Amino acid sequence: MKKNICTLAILSTLSFATFAADCDPNLLPSWKDGASKNALVTFVERSVDSQSSHYVPTQDRIAVFDNDGTLWSEKPYYFQLVYAFDQVKKMAVDHPEWQTQAPFKFVLDNDIESVLAGGEEALLEIVTATHSGMTVEEYQQSVASWLETAKDPRFQKAYTDLTYLPMKEMLNYLQQHGFKTYIVSGGGVDFMRTWAPEIYNIPQEQIIGSALKYQYNYNGGEPQVVKLGEILTIDDKAGKVENIQHIIGKKPVLAVGNSDGDHAMMQWATSQPNSMAMIVHHTDAEREWQYDRKSSVGHLDKAMDEANQRDNWHLIDMKNEWCTVY
Amino acid sequence: MKKNICTLAILSTLSFATFAADCDPNLLPSWKDGASKNALVTFVERSVDSQSSHYVPTQDRIAVFDNDGTLWSEKPYYFQLVYAFDQVKKMAVDHPEWQTQAPFKFVLDNDIESVLAGGEEALLEIVTATHSGMTVEEYQQSVASWLETAKDPRFQKAYTDLTYLPMKEMLNYLQQHGFKTYIVSGGGVDFMRTWAPEIYNIPQEQIIGSALKYQYNYNGGEPQVVKLGEILTIDDKAGKVENIQHIIGKKPVLAVGNSDGDHAMMQWATSQPNSMAMIVHHTDAEREWQYDRKSSVGHLDKAMDEANQRDNWHLIDMKNEWCTVY
Repeated sequence: MKKNICTLAILSTLSFATFAADCDPNLLPSWKDGASKNALVTFVERSVDSQSSHYVPTQDRIAVFDNDGTLWSEKPYYFQLVYAFDQVKKMAVDHPEWQTQAPFKFVLDNDIESVLAGGEEALLEIVTATHSGMTVEEYQQSVASWLETAKDPRFQKAYTDLTYLPMKEMLNYLQQHGFKTYIVSGGGVDFMRTWAPEIYNIPQEQIIGSALKYQYNYNGGEPQVVKLGEILTIDDKAGKVENIQHIIGKKPVLAVGNSDGDHAMMQWATSQPNSMAMIVHHTDAEREWQYDRKSSVGHLDKAMDEANQRDNWHLIDMKNEWCTVY
Repeated sequence: MKKNICTLAILSTLSFATFAADCDPNLLPSWKDGASKNALVTFVERSVDSQSSHYVPTQDRIAVFDNDGTLWSEKPYYFQLVYAFDQVKKMAVDHPEWQTQAPFKFVLDNDIESVLAGGEEALLEIVTATHSGMTVEEYQQSVASWLETAKDPRFQKAYTDLTYLPMKEMLNYLQQHGFKTYIVSGGGVDFMRTWAPEIYNIPQEQIIGSALKYQYNYNGGEPQVVKLGEILTIDDKAGKVENIQHIIGKKPVLAVGNSDGDHAMMQWATSQPNSMAMIVHHTDAEREWQYDRKSSVGHLDKAMDEANQRDNWHLIDMKNEWCTVY
């Protein structure tokens, strides 16, 4: 009798027990024991071992992370665009011409498909109109107050709650081992600096992104920096490498992304010994989203091919390798 | 008799004793006890005291330093120009047209006065020609090998030995108190990154400067970043503030410079509580150079007027406040 109760108890907890066995609560608890976690831990342990031939001196432990689709979700379209569309609606009262003017009229009609059909040019027009003509501080206050109430329609969560728990553990794990973690994202640098430092434990000065030009004004003794309506830099593809060179000044040893927009920075980072690239592969339609080669947002094609051919490039299978997503 | 010997001994060491009394070997030993050292120590002690109303949280302890004339000498003209002129001479064999073409012909004739008379435009033409068309690595190897042999004609020292000892002590003192020290200089960022990390203990990623555009190339599997012959940013005057906003993303609490080129960043930094500006004032014709309002290199005029009017702006009198210069 006693034995039977025990057997039942064991059976009833089996699924939990299996889960717990796969997910070590003491080391990267949201990662299942598997290829990606193993690659990460091996890479970090070698990097910090001064006796290893794979040792990386502390000053060279630079790790760069894309943001959209790598550290938080990016579907059905980039969250910063949701902010921009909401701003268009808010600002429309002062812009009667937007009622008839593409791409703004599409936003006001909630016809997002037509907005996106306008491609990068239409999106830049919207971003530029909603992100300029104010000081950096004013802009960031606007973003912060938007984030307080905006919710993702599918998950009914604040956007900052759609950041990936396993990736936050990865950032923390790297930071604890002396890595300087950077965000290198196509998203706007001032947008990310509003919330990312707290959420990812990455300071403002380690966030690189797309940016509009800045203009300093003495402003009669109250100096300010205004965001202009002209592009300073688009931090995507080759632009990511060029910005890393300009701002960090050295080649990272670890580059993490999720799309072909990160391909160049992964190739550049891994063109040296003791380096690694990782790609978040969106394989989980149920807990998050499932997409790669055929998606326009987060298009992953050539970088995936390269990952399948190179030993130090690793695809992170979100569905099968993450115990928890958010 | 014994007493007399003692008296003589005391008299003979008096000048040294006075000097030693002014310069505390345990705290910023190259700084005489005086107004500037006092301002610096007071500022730092308050910043790190969590009980003080002047407390600055660690993540906000950002200090920015100009380089030319602030951390090393800049006379008779910027050392990076000496490199550029030497490169013109080296490259002239492949550029026969330079023999007759200004400003290059002036460089080849050692007529530096005529080069400088061409103003910023002529200098940019020379810098662009000598600093582009190669990878960042190739450029930095060229700078490093130049620095190994080049000597300043007046002091017969390597240029990196013309860095100011008191300022290196100041950087170290700030770093020990949790300040993140940045260089924000009109000089070229790739030029400074070659030698400044070792000399100032400031990593590459905390060096901001003027830059040419970068271009990433996949280069058949050996990715590289090439320096193009177009300006990316001129890090001077308002440009310093704009680059700090872009790259650091927050307002520094301490800005240190030596010329009106640093005026904007000093005004911006000190437009908040618990901030300070310091200006290295070149008052020492004997041990270094003496110049301010009338000099074209390191022109210091409006910023000096403002320093004389504001309590948290301090002029560092090189001649009277530094025990040692180099």
